[in-house]
Amino acid sequence: MTDTTSNKMWGGRFAAGPDAIMEAINASIGFDKRMAAQDIAGSRAHAAMLAATGIIQASDADAIREGLLTVLSEIDGGTFQFSAALEDIHMNVEARLKEVIGEPAGRLHTGRSRNDQVATDFKLWTRDQLDAADAGLVALIGALLTQAEAGAEWVMPGFTHLQTAQPVTWGHHMMAYVEMFSRDLGRFRDARARMNECPLGAAALAGTSFPIDRDMTAQALGFDRPSANSLDAVSDRDFALEFLGAASICAMHLSRFAEELVIWSSAQFRFVTLSDRFSTGSSIMPQKKNPDAAELIRAKVGRIFGANTALMMVMKGLPLAYSKDMQEDKEQVFDAADNLMLALAAMEGMVRDMTANRDHLAAAAGSGFSTATDLADWLVRVLGMPFRDAHHVTGTLVARAETKGCDLPDLTLDDMQAVHPEITNAVFDVLGVENSVNSRTSYGGTAPAQVRAQIARWKDNLK
Amino acid sequence: MTDTTSNKMWGGRFAAGPDAIMEAINASIGFDKRMAAQDIAGSRAHAAMLAATGIIQASDADAIREGLLTVLSEIDGGTFQFSAALEDIHMNVEARLKEVIGEPAGRLHTGRSRNDQVATDFKLWTRDQLDAADAGLVALIGALLTQAEAGAEWVMPGFTHLQTAQPVTWGHHMMAYVEMFSRDLGRFRDARARMNECPLGAAALAGTSFPIDRDMTAQALGFDRPSANSLDAVSDRDFALEFLGAASICAMHLSRFAEELVIWSSAQFRFVTLSDRFSTGSSIMPQKKNPDAAELIRAKVGRIFGANTALMMVMKGLPLAYSKDMQEDKEQVFDAADNLMLALAAMEGMVRDMTANRDHLAAAAGSGFSTATDLADWLVRVLGMPFRDAHHVTGTLVARAETKGCDLPDLTLDDMQAVHPEITNAVFDVLGVENSVNSRTSYGGTAPAQVRAQIARWKDNLK
Amino acid sequence: MTDTTSNKMWGGRFAAGPDAIMEAINASIGFDKRMAAQDIAGSRAHAAMLAATGIIQASDADAIREGLLTVLSEIDGGTFQFSAALEDIHMNVEARLKEVIGEPAGRLHTGRSRNDQVATDFKLWTRDQLDAADAGLVALIGALLTQAEAGAEWVMPGFTHLQTAQPVTWGHHMMAYVEMFSRDLGRFRDARARMNECPLGAAALAGTSFPIDRDMTAQALGFDRPSANSLDAVSDRDFALEFLGAASICAMHLSRFAEELVIWSSAQFRFVTLSDRFSTGSSIMPQKKNPDAAELIRAKVGRIFGANTALMMVMKGLPLAYSKDMQEDKEQVFDAADNLMLALAAMEGMVRDMTANRDHLAAAAGSGFSTATDLADWLVRVLGMPFRDAHHVTGTLVARAETKGCDLPDLTLDDMQAVHPEITNAVFDVLGVENSVNSRTSYGGTAPAQVRAQIARWKDNLK
Amino acid sequence: MTDTTSNKMWGGRFAAGPDAIMEAINASIGFDKRMAAQDIAGSRAHAAMLAATGIIQASDADAIREGLLTVLSEIDGGTFQFSAALEDIHMNVEARLKEVIGEPAGRLHTGRSRNDQVATDFKLWTRDQLDAADAGLVALIGALLTQAEAGAEWVMPGFTHLQTAQPVTWGHHMMAYVEMFSRDLGRFRDARARMNECPLGAAALAGTSFPIDRDMTAQALGFDRPSANSLDAVSDRDFALEFLGAASICAMHLSRFAEELVIWSSAQFRFVTLSDRFSTGSSIMPQKKNPDAAELIRAKVGRIFGANTALMMVMKGLPLAYSKDMQEDKEQVFDAADNLMLALAAMEGMVRDMTANRDHLAAAAGSGFSTATDLADWLVRVLGMPFRDAHHVTGTLVARAETKGCDLPDLTLDDMQAVHPEITNAVFDVLGVENSVNSRTSYGGTAPAQVRAQIARWKDNLK
Repeated sequence: MTDTTSNKMWGGRFAAGPDAIMEAINASIGFDKRMAAQDIAGSRAHAAMLAATGIIQASDADAIREGLLTVLSEIDGGTFQFSAALEDIHMNVEARLKEVIGEPAGRLHTGRSRNDQVATDFKLWTRDQLDAADAGLVALIGALLTQAEAGAEWVMPGFTHLQTAQPVTWGHHMMAYVEMFSRDLGRFRDARARMNECPLGAAALAGTSFPIDRDMTAQALGFDRPSANSLDAVSDRDFALEFLGAASICAMHLSRFAEELVIWSSAQFRFVTLSDRFSTGSSIMPQKKNPDAAELIRAKVGRIFGANTALMMVMKGLPLAYSKDMQEDKEQVFDAADNLMLALAAMEGMVRDMTANRDHLAAAAGSGFSTATDLADWLVRVLGMPFRDAHHVTGTLVARAETKGCDLPDLTLDDMQAVHPEITNAVFDVLGVENSVNSRTSYGGTAPAQVRAQIARWKDNLK
Repeated sequence: MTDTTSNKMWGGRFAAGPDAIMEAINASIGFDKRMAAQDIAGSRAHAAMLAATGIIQASDADAIREGLLTVLSEIDGGTFQFSAALEDIHMNVEARLKEVIGEPAGRLHTGRSRNDQVATDFKLWTRDQLDAADAGLVALIGALLTQAEAGAEWVMPGFTHLQTAQPVTWGHHMMAYVEMFSRDLGRFRDARARMNECPLGAAALAGTSFPIDRDMTAQALGFDRPSANSLDAVSDRDFALEFLGAASICAMHLSRFAEELVIWSSAQFRFVTLSDRFSTGSSIMPQKKNPDAAELIRAKVGRIFGANTALMMVMKGLPLAYSKDMQEDKEQVFDAADNLMLALAAMEGMVRDMTANRDHLAAAAGSGFSTATDLADWLVRVLGMPFRDAHHVTGTLVARAETKGCDLPDLTLDDMQAVHPEITNAVFDVLGVENSVNSRTSYGGTAPAQVRAQIARWKDNLK
Repeated sequence: MTDTTSNKMWGGRFAAGPDAIMEAINASIGFDKRMAAQDIAGSRAHAAMLAATGIIQASDADAIREGLLTVLSEIDGGTFQFSAALEDIHMNVEARLKEVIGEPAGRLHTGRSRNDQVATDFKLWTRDQLDAADAGLVALIGALLTQAEAGAEWVMPGFTHLQTAQPVTWGHHMMAYVEMFSRDLGRFRDARARMNECPLGAAALAGTSFPIDRDMTAQALGFDRPSANSLDAVSDRDFALEFLGAASICAMHLSRFAEELVIWSSAQFRFVTLSDRFSTGSSIMPQKKNPDAAELIRAKVGRIFGANTALMMVMKGLPLAYSKDMQEDKEQVFDAADNLMLALAAMEGMVRDMTANRDHLAAAAGSGFSTATDLADWLVRVLGMPFRDAHHVTGTLVARAETKGCDLPDLTLDDMQAVHPEITNAVFDVLGVENSVNSRTSYGGTAPAQVRAQIARWKDNLK
Repeated sequence: MTDTTSNKMWGGRFAAGPDAIMEAINASIGFDKRMAAQDIAGSRAHAAMLAATGIIQASDADAIREGLLTVLSEIDGGTFQFSAALEDIHMNVEARLKEVIGEPAGRLHTGRSRNDQVATDFKLWTRDQLDAADAGLVALIGALLTQAEAGAEWVMPGFTHLQTAQPVTWGHHMMAYVEMFSRDLGRFRDARARMNECPLGAAALAGTSFPIDRDMTAQALGFDRPSANSLDAVSDRDFALEFLGAASICAMHLSRFAEELVIWSSAQFRFVTLSDRFSTGSSIMPQKKNPDAAELIRAKVGRIFGANTALMMVMKGLPLAYSKDMQEDKEQVFDAADNLMLALAAMEGMVRDMTANRDHLAAAAGSGFSTATDLADWLVRVLGMPFRDAHHVTGTLVARAETKGCDLPDLTLDDMQAVHPEITNAVFDVLGVENSVNSRTSYGGTAPAQVRAQIARWKDNLK
């Protein structure tokens, strides 16, 4: 195949061949070979349609379709020789097809162009990633539901500003991530529905005069319909950007959870123990057990949003229809997809493997005046104080406890009444962590019954 | 109100007041006052619910709800005195409410927190922007449909790589943008559906022990349902990020169209004439008529995606639940929304006002061997040549025309047959620009009948 | 001034005036009025040069220069009426100048254009920010040196992966930030030197035929020289991007320190106590003392890098020379500069006010097998073991200590010798935290003597 | 080597081995093997220093240094077997070293850690890229100077807003880019000077108790000095971010030039002809000659700034010292560096090869009332009109010419005097394009003498 270069395929237009720099900057085969299966699927659908509409002969279409399977098996088997001179996956496949089946190969490119071909290939590849992200999220949500169910009643501190705020349950905290990741799921599914229009048949940019049947190819490739404007079809990379945008938000959620796992694994917190499978050691400090997977997951949002930035900047200000700038689309999506799937899988594994340290969680939940709000609410509810006044009284009691070096439940009734004489012994009922958690029964609140209800709802949803 | 600072509201916890730097970095009232109407709507719904559930007395709720209307009218009327010492819109409104109605004001904050309050306000504000973007896009699509309908048959060059590729029609080109902007519409609508859950009642982070009715407040504020996890409800800014992501892609589309308008307005292209209303002059070059609006629109994608970058980076790695970092969310969304709406309105105005220069478009459409593909397709269709061979023959004919200094239709039959003897006079039928355009009848192609069909479909869709 | 619009200044070119949308998207006076002082300084220098070179009469120049001072005092005094119809600060000032001094005002714009005028104004403004960042960093470094000096010997855990790794000193940790912020200082200073070329006199884009003296205006405005290419002078925004780039890295450093302060302030760490001045309370949780300033500082990197992203995307692909897109430059730089200066000041305040909790730091430093490396190094140094073997022995001893529930210094010599028989009692000398810290005397290491040497060096540098 | 995994090197700490997901997310050997030469250079310098300071024996150091050369030759020769189980280049090299030289290999890691080792390797690699960018820029500037010299007098339109503004010369336009790229050169050189401090010897984070000589290793590796704080040395990635920032601005400059080349190559502009070497054809449109290289270069700013975004986001909020997140640094810098060097080389090639179409440039320069400013300046200079009045008169004359369908030089004196009676025939001297260009003799202006002076200055600078 060495003497059949893509340049030669363009015909005799050029006096000089592209030199090494040009080949290096121009060739995409180094990365777009990942779309080989999609390219061949698209070509097979196209050939079948060309025959069905009488544009080419059935025998030619059969030869093409069979030959393409041969090429695919060579690629899958690792025996295919990719050529940078042939620039891209499309030309590599077609050149090899010609070697395999001869003259009919030249009829495959009838009524299409590389512009609609690459748009189709890339959409098919991206669609697979939307499905993979979907599966990865469902698995991760499953792992979270398992953790939530086990610890629907385990108390832990709820933080704001990383300061102890109010007690919550482990299950409630896990379910917060279920909400986040389920929104991600929604975004990937909406993106899939929106992008599922087939560009094939848009040709270079204007459509074609051959009597092609775009519905047929669209259906064969699993699309809902053909795209409705040929200029747009070859110029559009919204599907890639929408994938990157949804992936970025998802990776941001992962970064938040990863940050928590890193903090929770510290010697100071000891809220969780990560499994050895998702930790590593140190070359110089033998005692270290590092949450490497969590840290790497935390970093992925940078990489994925970097890809989003890259493609957004590439697309900025491009006139219609196809511009070569758009060749920069694929590596960004490939890299973001690979890293998102890896991060989802690693997070799922970490969540499945990790152990919550109930004792540490409970001890931390009870410290730091975490039931001060319960005290303030009691003053409102029982004594009928306006909230702002109750808030002030509670603040004074917290200051008193701090001075005494104790927590709120350790104050005496005398301490209490010195600040507000109407307080009674009944107040101590709300100052326990368990009581606090159990009392927060508003919809979506941290009371175990609420948490269990949400677990049940999600299990049902994801069936 | 000068002696009632927000700091005092927190109670006696702090010995020292925040100093000037702290106030400067901490106060949000400078920007969050834009959410005054949303804040008051949320508080009024909350007060009504507190009364309906018996948590506060109906008379208190009535006083609160009435007093809030007074405060709103003061804000609308410009007589409200905002105080930076009171930090944010929530505290400013509540402090003024207390001045207006006295003691019952202190009961408003029962069973909620600033965390769920600000999440609710900001969601309501952002939801309004989703609706505004929707309206702006519908108007812009309307302007594009009008242009497309007028010029469904006007020929112009279709470009790839900014090189003349194949003739298309003006209407077809306009409709490409209809497709893009309609996908934007879909993204804004999906975002609205996904975000339409009410955080109010999540309280600080754990829910509340007061017997609140979250369905009631959700319904009163136009939400589909209350959010299902209180930790998530106060930690979530997905709705802002999803708005920014959709706005960024939309602004990218605007930048592409704006780039085309700038190029098309150049003395070299002269494809369109922009109206004086959307152009400006030069202080030193009196002859200049500059496409300023188009250039400014082109730039907006930077600003809007910059906001997306900012908020994504802010949210990266934040542990649950609320962290003060999240206060950086609003200015980004405010600025992006303002600029998106402005850009949409300016683009709509430009599109409505602009005049396509049919003569220049037609002349350009016919130059540059723009029907070479038609020639190649003719060789395939009529002579049965494989596409790759037809492509080679066409390339040779183009080179011959270039040498002669003429275009393809100006070659003689002898010229043609010198390259390929089977070519007949019938070939000249496909070499005209009008013929070329009319022949591209594949679905979504540039043939005027196809373009008109798409215009009709979109008019129907948008009814 | 209402009837003197900028549009009218352009002369009679336009039949229709820009409408409201156009004015809204086009006018920059809403933000570029912040450059009033720079604009007037530039105009005064320009007028003096025009007189010195005989292009205008000295009496006109005097009137202009005096009149501009009047305008400046009106602006400073808050009595100036800015007009959006006059678009920008340049036109607003010039129109008012005409009202104040009459006809000579019309001679000011000789030999220049708004293009070089705005480039000059914006450079002057940005140069001031480079100086402000310089001052802010020097102050912050001063605060860090004070903390470092106080705690040059205080031990604390050094972390990798947020796991206890090896003991370090408080002073050493503070000095790490001195290194970071001093690199920021270098970047701001390099940027200042590079950008200090004066665009004034580049006129619209081609220079001018008036015999202007660009060296004179450059010198008057504190520039090192005039810029050397007039096209570049009006097209260049590198100085803004380089400021944003340096500011982003600086803000990233601030975010890392802020993250540490947030973590260190948690109930679980208690490494530092922030002052009340840089903390806030909670509306619902009276006991909370939140590190708001640290969180807000942590967020600023998003905002500042968002501005960097915005302007980079705006500049992408702009043909020479001036394009209106570039009007989007200023708000990004204004916002980034304001927030950087605020963040630097707030961080300086926090650092000056904060108290290191020596007991907690020391206790944490001694836990978690933090001297395991010292043990391994002892095995290498004293017993001559290859490092990798020593590492293995140490790991086994750590595992043994973990099983026994003790730390390394609590193992007996028998425990030690059971793993490696050649270990002697001398090993216990290196297992104390103080010993560990004191032993790390390599250049730049954590030994107090090294830390003090670095403090002395920096104090000397910054004199 | 298959049974010697990195995990085993950590000793017996872990019961379970990392599974496939963990290996996939954790291993860096897939990319960090690009730093093999730097890693080996660093290790050889370290070994020499260990011997010179008596920490290890000279014979061991010799064996190590010799063995490392063997390993390097295996890597260079392609016979080295990289192992993902050994995680990274450091472990791969060391494991192989042990196979080659046996026991002394275990002494190499004395007094250092992977943390300072990777920081050193990565700095060395990045420093090479700073040098490569330097060389690439010098070559590109050389190509621009050649173009500028050839066309110092060729007239072309100077644009603002892509509208013809004033005539400039080809040489002047080329020299604008020389200014831009020379600022890039300055940024890369400043970055190199700032980053040239050696982290080696910082060990894990705290320095070491071995009596190492950091000056010796720093000098051996071409650094100016050792880094001054061990915590900072292993935590710092400023050098990578500063490279990415400078590369982004440089790529932005390239994108602007590339945009111009794409526009200039259009059938409508025809300002330049690109060589066949840097153009490509179309698979369906045989006549196309596409400026692919320019488009791909235009896109690179997205990719490079995307890498900047990624790493900035990764570094945001990382506590000291080393966190595993930082492993995400290298692929971003590798990719950005590869693409920057490619883009610089391709741009240099395009510039060297391209042909300015002088006729088209000249024709365009003379159209569009491009000498209107010259007319206005004449009115000021000769008739003594205030600039603003002259501007108004010129605008009226342009409108008259537009109505007559001619350009300014084609107006009659009667036309002129009808607008302003004092205008004389002398005005026509300034309305020619050549006259206009020659008159702009202010420093940095477009007059050919000025352009030649700048060319001479730059040739001298770059000697």
